[in-house]
Amino acid sequence: MTDTANRRGWARMADSDPLVRTVDTLLRGAGQVMFQDSAWCGLFFLLGIGWGAWKEGIPEVGIGAVLGLIVGTLAAYILNAPRADIRKGLHGYNGILVGCALPTFFGPTPTCWVLVAAGAFFSTVIMLGVSRFLSTWKVSAMTGPFVFTTWLILLASYNFAHFKITGLPHPTFSVQPTQAMAALPGSEVLFMASLKGISQVFLIGNAVTGVLFLIGLAGSSLPAAVFAWLGSVAAIATAAFLGADERSVAEGMYQFSAVLTAVGLGSTFYSPNMRTALYALLGTVFTVVAQGALNVALAPLGIPTLTFPFVLAAWFFLLPNLQLLPVSHRTSSPAV
Amino acid sequence: MTDTANRRGWARMADSDPLVRTVDTLLRGAGQVMFQDSAWCGLFFLLGIGWGAWKEGIPEVGIGAVLGLIVGTLAAYILNAPRADIRKGLHGYNGILVGCALPTFFGPTPTCWVLVAAGAFFSTVIMLGVSRFLSTWKVSAMTGPFVFTTWLILLASYNFAHFKITGLPHPTFSVQPTQAMAALPGSEVLFMASLKGISQVFLIGNAVTGVLFLIGLAGSSLPAAVFAWLGSVAAIATAAFLGADERSVAEGMYQFSAVLTAVGLGSTFYSPNMRTALYALLGTVFTVVAQGALNVALAPLGIPTLTFPFVLAAWFFLLPNLQLLPVSHRTSSPAV
Amino acid sequence: MTDTANRRGWARMADSDPLVRTVDTLLRGAGQVMFQDSAWCGLFFLLGIGWGAWKEGIPEVGIGAVLGLIVGTLAAYILNAPRADIRKGLHGYNGILVGCALPTFFGPTPTCWVLVAAGAFFSTVIMLGVSRFLSTWKVSAMTGPFVFTTWLILLASYNFAHFKITGLPHPTFSVQPTQAMAALPGSEVLFMASLKGISQVFLIGNAVTGVLFLIGLAGSSLPAAVFAWLGSVAAIATAAFLGADERSVAEGMYQFSAVLTAVGLGSTFYSPNMRTALYALLGTVFTVVAQGALNVALAPLGIPTLTFPFVLAAWFFLLPNLQLLPVSHRTSSPAV
Repeated sequence: MTDTANRRGWARMADSDPLVRTVDTLLRGAGQVMFQDSAWCGLFFLLGIGWGAWKEGIPEVGIGAVLGLIVGTLAAYILNAPRADIRKGLHGYNGILVGCALPTFFGPTPTCWVLVAAGAFFSTVIMLGVSRFLSTWKVSAMTGPFVFTTWLILLASYNFAHFKITGLPHPTFSVQPTQAMAALPGSEVLFMASLKGISQVFLIGNAVTGVLFLIGLAGSSLPAAVFAWLGSVAAIATAAFLGADERSVAEGMYQFSAVLTAVGLGSTFYSPNMRTALYALLGTVFTVVAQGALNVALAPLGIPTLTFPFVLAAWFFLLPNLQLLPVSHRTSSPAV
Repeated sequence: MTDTANRRGWARMADSDPLVRTVDTLLRGAGQVMFQDSAWCGLFFLLGIGWGAWKEGIPEVGIGAVLGLIVGTLAAYILNAPRADIRKGLHGYNGILVGCALPTFFGPTPTCWVLVAAGAFFSTVIMLGVSRFLSTWKVSAMTGPFVFTTWLILLASYNFAHFKITGLPHPTFSVQPTQAMAALPGSEVLFMASLKGISQVFLIGNAVTGVLFLIGLAGSSLPAAVFAWLGSVAAIATAAFLGADERSVAEGMYQFSAVLTAVGLGSTFYSPNMRTALYALLGTVFTVVAQGALNVALAPLGIPTLTFPFVLAAWFFLLPNLQLLPVSHRTSSPAV
Repeated sequence: MTDTANRRGWARMADSDPLVRTVDTLLRGAGQVMFQDSAWCGLFFLLGIGWGAWKEGIPEVGIGAVLGLIVGTLAAYILNAPRADIRKGLHGYNGILVGCALPTFFGPTPTCWVLVAAGAFFSTVIMLGVSRFLSTWKVSAMTGPFVFTTWLILLASYNFAHFKITGLPHPTFSVQPTQAMAALPGSEVLFMASLKGISQVFLIGNAVTGVLFLIGLAGSSLPAAVFAWLGSVAAIATAAFLGADERSVAEGMYQFSAVLTAVGLGSTFYSPNMRTALYALLGTVFTVVAQGALNVALAPLGIPTLTFPFVLAAWFFLLPNLQLLPVSHRTSSPAV
């Protein structure tokens, strides 16, 4: 009740005060990473990022997030993107992810910050292009612009001497692991893994961050929070069945894309019901298989999958445009 | 005459009896692998698969084919695909191919059968998505859904410990062979290679299977059978000219995609005539070059091309929408 | 004045004399590589190719250029492409590039010339297909058909014994260079590099060729010439900032795609003004990053990027369809 009243007051201030409106737009940009057009949600996402960046000793990820969020949104103004889309945060969510990703893989040199700003700007150009391309089928760009932009920059880093690579795997051929998760780890480890899987959406492995993200989601949409956590759990189960590496599961690496798929299919692009939940579960299982496939496909290039398993799942499962009681999702608002 | 009468009787039974109708739908699904909306053709395809699976000691390929065919078709019912498309077998042909492919590369473990069922289901989701995407240009999905699904699962197998890989090549860099087919092999070997090239459409290297496939095709469309065999012969000639590995040609590895291109361009998407035949020949030559290119492109990933050379050729040669006396191909029936 | 008069006389002759018209069409095909529907421009491009081929001791590149140009244009007639598009040279520019590229990487064997002819023919098929695909968003095929065709043939060369590979890099994993351009080279070297960067559009590293290309461009469109040279300079600056290999910059390898992006975004698809120039500069910077990224992505396959960095940049920066005072670019004329 108080929360709601607070938020109504905030909405009034955002209408009248340009500075508050700008902050509101930026917070919605953070929230849109998990499809929430909600400043409240975005606030908790930023809190979660801040906490995780501090606890895990990676402050540059927090700085990058804010820089990328601002530049991505600013780019949309400069490029004359439709104001309504900007206001919903649709041109902030790719920038914030670029800003989390690049400092994760590069040392925090001046070049890195130039790349975050340039990458966030490019991600908005690509967002406009991919959205126009996909609007033909009324499908959204998802986090595709973030993935394409970051892949290009990560690949380029091997080619140029002035990039300081710190966190990229060596390019290599894939070899099948001989040992998987020997036994299922204890329930506490699994529970922590389900939360870290949520925090890894922003490239952070921290359970408290995962809880903060869930609180933000729940404040915007309770089904979104439920699907996020269930998606993470379903991903762990699928990964265990297929024989994934235990340490990767504990760190959340098979869950973060699946979380996005579950929230997207289960509560965003379709309204939540039993049929939708089953379809979202299928999508989540597909996402884990795609995660494994892309791990292998990208190994010779030495770059990570980022959230592309989710992007693939979302595009493949939304393109058929099945009639499972869809909510309206307008072409002018690609990520809602 | 008797055949025709038999088939008319069968059509009447399919109209009145749900069980016969289901069997008819499944047989058409087998036939659609080579574009034939014909239960007769599908019957001979299944006979050919059965014979080849028995003679080559790979019964799991036959079992997988039937399982994939059923699950792929069932998935279309569950997902509310248009009934007319299901009835023509358009949601069976990717599933049957998934069912032939996975047991070829994996040991017949329980995991393998789960993967066949899941893969066949996914292939129908992807079929619906890719068909909607390509309907913008009135181009069909071809075997693209089978290829994408199978590639994802094959790639994922390197990542997870519970897959039993038995038939995948090791990931490697490509090195140009120093020796090609020294001399053309004898005409008997070439004739057998032309038949095995047809049987390899279903991942089986057996000349009798190729003959059974040709009988099935001829019963549905004589030009289809002629183009299938000529496509295989043209592929052998092209492969010999370019300097392909002799053993691969003898096993049919450069022919199977070309067979599909020849049938597709020569007798399905265009009505057969002289100009069409020349265009189909061009497409067939292109397919063999694309086969070589994709062999190299996929070598670092350790996965086979499957029928993607055909998919590439079909998309590139049909997208221009040239006026070579086209037959009508409606958007609601992607593979006809 | 005399030039203009000459060209008017030429235009009259082209209207009345079929042979002159054919030559005019072919010259426009050469000019369209840099978006110029101008026989004058094409003439200087051919002169530049001829000079470079002679001086650098690679006559086969000149022969290939003419053969590819003729076959590509002829293919469009045979395939019933719209006459107006053929007349503007839109079906020659991919063929001429195929003809320059293949003899650069293969020895000038009979197989090579067959491949140039077949490749130029295929490039026109693909041009028709890609143009129809992209016309949905009113975006042009750019040099995509040349790139796809040439990549397929280069990849295939590793697979077949009868290709004589002479100029392809060995497939390998990428390793970050430890040393970049230590200091900026002298201004003379940089000036030469800016000209070689223009000549490399046709796979030739020769400064005089670059000058001849600039003269041709200036005769057709002064802004095009200015943007070409500035694009080359901007690419050198970007490559130096990122830490590119000095020898590659001196040879023009980071500039040629950027030149095309600068001309395309700065003077062709948008009319030249300050906002457009800034957008073109962004696109040019993006192209250099994409050049580095694609160098890495293609290293395991052992093939060069060709002009794909430009194609990526053009597609990504034109798809948003931003309102920066666009000139009309009709769907029936993909590259103008």
